[in-house]
Amino acid sequence: MPAAKFRPRVYLAGPEVFLPNAREVGAEKCRIAAEAGFKGVFPLDNALDLADLGKAEQARRISQANEGLMRLCDALIANLTPFRGASMDAGTAFEVGFMRALGRPVAGYTNTPHDYLERAKLVRTGPALPFDADHPHVEIEDFDLAENLMIEIAIRESGCSVVRNRVGGGHEMTDLTGFRQCLAELQRLFPGQAP
Amino acid sequence: MPAAKFRPRVYLAGPEVFLPNAREVGAEKCRIAAEAGFKGVFPLDNALDLADLGKAEQARRISQANEGLMRLCDALIANLTPFRGASMDAGTAFEVGFMRALGRPVAGYTNTPHDYLERAKLVRTGPALPFDADHPHVEIEDFDLAENLMIEIAIRESGCSVVRNRVGGGHEMTDLTGFRQCLAELQRLFPGQAP
Repeated sequence: MPAAKFRPRVYLAGPEVFLPNAREVGAEKCRIAAEAGFKGVFPLDNALDLADLGKAEQARRISQANEGLMRLCDALIANLTPFRGASMDAGTAFEVGFMRALGRPVAGYTNTPHDYLERAKLVRTGPALPFDADHPHVEIEDFDLAENLMIEIAIRESGCSVVRNRVGGGHEMTDLTGFRQCLAELQRLFPGQAP
Repeated sequence: MPAAKFRPRVYLAGPEVFLPNAREVGAEKCRIAAEAGFKGVFPLDNALDLADLGKAEQARRISQANEGLMRLCDALIANLTPFRGASMDAGTAFEVGFMRALGRPVAGYTNTPHDYLERAKLVRTGPALPFDADHPHVEIEDFDLAENLMIEIAIRESGCSVVRNRVGGGHEMTDLTGFRQCLAELQRLFPGQAP
């Protein structure tokens, strides 16, 4: 019997965990990751039993589980698509930083083609939150990047690039074209993993 | 001559780096940190000479410098005040995750009293970005927290709490009441540091 092939574990970070069909989306990402030679690890994989717990303890267990999963993963792919503002989901940004500090490769994709600079101008002129309108003199990063430089450079220094695609029609959060491109980037970093 | 007293180094994360008077704000934070027995480390401390570099190389050097500074710090205080959307600055979220992965305490404050849940509803009903309006069925975290749970739980598990204050009048980004409270929290974690 041949030894089981090593499949690098990839943490699948992104705001999809908030979709009504999050588990289904996670399963699809894991299926695509497997085709590329990786073991996908979706945050909800823990199947935590939280029903009888208070909110604070639920939050604590989810955090603890996800930090534990990240420590067991070899790489991360982040969905950087803007979420409730100019930038990506804050939890996903936390996770990119977490894996970067551990020295593990981070890849990322966004389903908008626009620079951070363009998006930030949209939010500043909108009435979304009082804060944005009250500080017109705050500098907007101008580095031709899709996200805050700490995020995008962490991805570049990992040997990847932020993959941008123009996605519309309500598929901004779920289109997986960029995800597949990230897997291809990770294949270059983990040679011999393609099935 | 007595030995120099050990002063824990605290990385000062937050979107203040984008203010026109960022260096001044950083100096003030460092002064207050020193009064509390800490050595403040503001991202701009590097005083990088970037003038003749292209944008990509500028971004790379800033990222590299800040990651290096974080690795040299004993703790982090994050300004979690919402920035261009429902959530905190993405770069700051990255840095909270980075220090969390290194096992170093993270503290944080926000200059709005509102839960993440309340703020996310504001953004979803606004025209800030097409994305927000197009996905009405995306779940909003409901854990009575000020931020995404990965951020807030990382702070709680560090032995701190997310400090909330109601600040208005254009001082949302600069009021330092919460920052002082975070320093008091870190003093409990580094006993004997009070000057």
